[in-house]
Amino acid sequence: MTSKRYVLSFSCRNRPGIVAAVSTLLFESGANIDDAHQFDDPETGNFFMRVSFAFVTPEGGIERLEAGFARAASEYGMEWMIRDTSLQARVLLLVSRFDHCLADIVYRWRIGELSMEIVGIVSNYPREGFEHLPLGGLAFDYLPVTHETKTKQEAAIWRIVEERKVDLVVLARYMQVLSDELSARLTGRCINIHHSFLPGFKGAKPYHQAHQRGVKLIGATAHYVTADLDEGPIIEQDVERISHHDGPNDLVRKGRDVERRVLARAIAWHLEGRVVPNGGKTVVFKD
Amino acid sequence: MTSKRYVLSFSCRNRPGIVAAVSTLLFESGANIDDAHQFDDPETGNFFMRVSFAFVTPEGGIERLEAGFARAASEYGMEWMIRDTSLQARVLLLVSRFDHCLADIVYRWRIGELSMEIVGIVSNYPREGFEHLPLGGLAFDYLPVTHETKTKQEAAIWRIVEERKVDLVVLARYMQVLSDELSARLTGRCINIHHSFLPGFKGAKPYHQAHQRGVKLIGATAHYVTADLDEGPIIEQDVERISHHDGPNDLVRKGRDVERRVLARAIAWHLEGRVVPNGGKTVVFKD
Amino acid sequence: MTSKRYVLSFSCRNRPGIVAAVSTLLFESGANIDDAHQFDDPETGNFFMRVSFAFVTPEGGIERLEAGFARAASEYGMEWMIRDTSLQARVLLLVSRFDHCLADIVYRWRIGELSMEIVGIVSNYPREGFEHLPLGGLAFDYLPVTHETKTKQEAAIWRIVEERKVDLVVLARYMQVLSDELSARLTGRCINIHHSFLPGFKGAKPYHQAHQRGVKLIGATAHYVTADLDEGPIIEQDVERISHHDGPNDLVRKGRDVERRVLARAIAWHLEGRVVPNGGKTVVFKD
Amino acid sequence: MTSKRYVLSFSCRNRPGIVAAVSTLLFESGANIDDAHQFDDPETGNFFMRVSFAFVTPEGGIERLEAGFARAASEYGMEWMIRDTSLQARVLLLVSRFDHCLADIVYRWRIGELSMEIVGIVSNYPREGFEHLPLGGLAFDYLPVTHETKTKQEAAIWRIVEERKVDLVVLARYMQVLSDELSARLTGRCINIHHSFLPGFKGAKPYHQAHQRGVKLIGATAHYVTADLDEGPIIEQDVERISHHDGPNDLVRKGRDVERRVLARAIAWHLEGRVVPNGGKTVVFKD
Repeated sequence: MTSKRYVLSFSCRNRPGIVAAVSTLLFESGANIDDAHQFDDPETGNFFMRVSFAFVTPEGGIERLEAGFARAASEYGMEWMIRDTSLQARVLLLVSRFDHCLADIVYRWRIGELSMEIVGIVSNYPREGFEHLPLGGLAFDYLPVTHETKTKQEAAIWRIVEERKVDLVVLARYMQVLSDELSARLTGRCINIHHSFLPGFKGAKPYHQAHQRGVKLIGATAHYVTADLDEGPIIEQDVERISHHDGPNDLVRKGRDVERRVLARAIAWHLEGRVVPNGGKTVVFKD
Repeated sequence: MTSKRYVLSFSCRNRPGIVAAVSTLLFESGANIDDAHQFDDPETGNFFMRVSFAFVTPEGGIERLEAGFARAASEYGMEWMIRDTSLQARVLLLVSRFDHCLADIVYRWRIGELSMEIVGIVSNYPREGFEHLPLGGLAFDYLPVTHETKTKQEAAIWRIVEERKVDLVVLARYMQVLSDELSARLTGRCINIHHSFLPGFKGAKPYHQAHQRGVKLIGATAHYVTADLDEGPIIEQDVERISHHDGPNDLVRKGRDVERRVLARAIAWHLEGRVVPNGGKTVVFKD
Repeated sequence: MTSKRYVLSFSCRNRPGIVAAVSTLLFESGANIDDAHQFDDPETGNFFMRVSFAFVTPEGGIERLEAGFARAASEYGMEWMIRDTSLQARVLLLVSRFDHCLADIVYRWRIGELSMEIVGIVSNYPREGFEHLPLGGLAFDYLPVTHETKTKQEAAIWRIVEERKVDLVVLARYMQVLSDELSARLTGRCINIHHSFLPGFKGAKPYHQAHQRGVKLIGATAHYVTADLDEGPIIEQDVERISHHDGPNDLVRKGRDVERRVLARAIAWHLEGRVVPNGGKTVVFKD
Repeated sequence: MTSKRYVLSFSCRNRPGIVAAVSTLLFESGANIDDAHQFDDPETGNFFMRVSFAFVTPEGGIERLEAGFARAASEYGMEWMIRDTSLQARVLLLVSRFDHCLADIVYRWRIGELSMEIVGIVSNYPREGFEHLPLGGLAFDYLPVTHETKTKQEAAIWRIVEERKVDLVVLARYMQVLSDELSARLTGRCINIHHSFLPGFKGAKPYHQAHQRGVKLIGATAHYVTADLDEGPIIEQDVERISHHDGPNDLVRKGRDVERRVLARAIAWHLEGRVVPNGGKTVVFKD
């Protein structure tokens, strides 16, 4: 039989014996580790670990483990989480006019590549604009926004986040800047795709900025949203080569491919518990 | 017999008939085109062309062509140049403490990959620091520099440029900022390698800045030097993937590989007349 | 006013004067070149050219040009074509069970990135399997195939090609080998995506072969279909990094991203007349 | 004080408790883990681990640990090794006519990027051909080889390997095929760079094969040498984009850059104990 798989992740101050303590605890609870990563940050003295495991003897293991781990966590001062990988994260997608990231995420979700539950799509553009996408039964909320209605609109978004118990908000080319308040409330559970290779070309119209500057590669950056616009911890980046032949529209076109694959990777890694915040940066246990 | 190969490059306002006029002129002068590139910049209305050719009937062709081209150039308002590819550009290399770019350029030159004459190496570090490099008979000038002696030191550099009829100055990790005056004098014939993916991480210690920000790729940028530090027209850029495991020293190490290949490409393309300035940007006729 | 844009492409034996003749002809017909590429193949002595142009004086230009070009083509022995870019190519998509390439092509077509008319989708899997894709009004033919019915099924495909005046057939992960007869009939107008970096891992289950061999990068190859399976002229290739952590299913997943972008590029370049056959290879005038 | 760093690597059949046993053993010996990687191969049921550590209490730790580990290794049936990273591997470089990989390795070694001792260079070309390289005091053996003298020449190589206690042989573009006997004797400690993206273009003149086939990317492959030519376990691969403009000589030129960086990475990872054989494949614990 295939027993359920769990992912443990934690961070704490580094000191000798942590791995021994954790792996012994797992072993004695009947867990078999199938993947493990760790990282010592020599700059901060912090320690990060991710362990994927399943129980050899299925009954009772997880309760024993959690009880034991709580004690260890308290001793070592850990921030920790154990996730049951059979429970899917509840994801809310925000999008504006350009829907290539949305289309891509929905496709990957349909074929099972992104293991999550899409609990809704929110857009400041009406549903009609997305008619060519196979959004089927997915809840869609049209929440237009102006300078004057921003507070109210964000309150509506937040209500959706709370009512639908949203675990992750994805800004899939949502072209509105979240307020500091909403950003703060979503700390660590809101991923944005910025269409430039940050820190280059922050702010509006990055492809036009890139064309103006005459760079030879364009990029995209997936990062956690913080109150500091375009300054959140970076999860993933990638680039694409361009040439003098490429006008701003060609950059937009080439950029779509980079944006969607960078965002998809960031979402997948987040869902699998591979991304651990480390101050203004991230630890990504990829492979 | 193999006749000499020439490279014509020019730019002018775009208007119909330019290619016809130029190619007819080449044909009637007995030249056979073996490679040609052109670019219409829709933003500025400027036209750029590079033609590589040789004469089928060897005698007299180049004189006839140059006379004819002068007339055409005047009619179309062209900035133009015809280079005899058998004449090597005279190159001066400037370097500070880190010599990976210097070592790489010298190696590529020795095996004939970079067709140029190295007329000297200038460093603000003494010759002894480069003893492990095979600099053989290459002229080496140790020109130390302090805040106080900068004007004098740059005068010495400029004297070398003039006396040795230098066509191209390469800042191969030369860690001094050239003055506005020297930058201006070297416009269009001085290439720098900056160890970041510009416009990200301008200025000092870019790898430390990159590490601090937590980017997932590092890069290097080869550009023409202008009075605006790190703002000159970009010739080439490339990147390398990094991870949270990489400290600043790892970035420096991984960066060396990117820097040297980006700089080598930029030099080669410049030497082959493939790089044409276009305002603050470049047109690069690569292949 | 914006006059129509045309693309001229031709190949012939190389000899002096071709570019002068062609560009003069274009100029005298009132055409303004906005993009041009050429390639001399030193191995075969063949010459290839692609010119994109529009008429400054709109009336009568194209007729004059075509008449003039026919004479030049006869003199130089050219294979040539002039395409009116306002007329869209008629494209037939063939697909089997995996629909990531199909979904991607249809999306790019809907947002106008691929300028073509999709005249139908043919699959050896029933329509129900594609219900989650927004295929809307697109004609769909379910043509199952077995060893016994292959000849008949291919006859049905061919009938569709003829009746719908198909210009290009795209095998978008169509997992059937076309017969020599059908391959021959579709020469130069049928593009396949093979899910390996050819010539490595020809034939069936390339990702499993790649995993078995322990390569560190996987790739995808878009090529014209010929009677020689997986040996047709290559249009585009790309790769993706993998590690020992990746099992065959991970390779399949990572491969989907490479496959779809490689195929999309190949289709776009073909549609724009950028791909010119050169024996068993291709000349691709990218930028 | 900075105590010495050690690297433990082992492989064995997977079963629960291995990580707990090993990490407890390390902890009880006074070792602090600063980096650890593990891999469960679901196909073979084998387990691989690499641990980098130093002793908090410097005295006696390594002896205690080795004694303890020998017992654990016997219980779990491990193949294992503990390396003192302060002891440099003794490396022999073999090279033929093209010396770009040799030049690159020697440079990286001089600046401390490759931590090893170069105990000699062997070439079937005379010393004079390498005069422009800064080989300084490095031992150089000119061992010409013909079909008739191959056995004798390989005996001379083997003598050097034995006399100088060579840990690693690097075929840095050594264009001779090692005999089955010598290959077998060097199993797991001989790295070759093949100038193609294996398994494509095995054997001689791979760049010419690649040009003939019309691929759009060329590659290089670093692998352990086995009796099966070009079939040994792959350590690292990378690619470079080419176009129809690139003739065989351009492929050779572009290939040099890929070859040297792929080989340098493979050597570095081998020296750091990051490469663990896994049948005909490798596990590479990169970062």
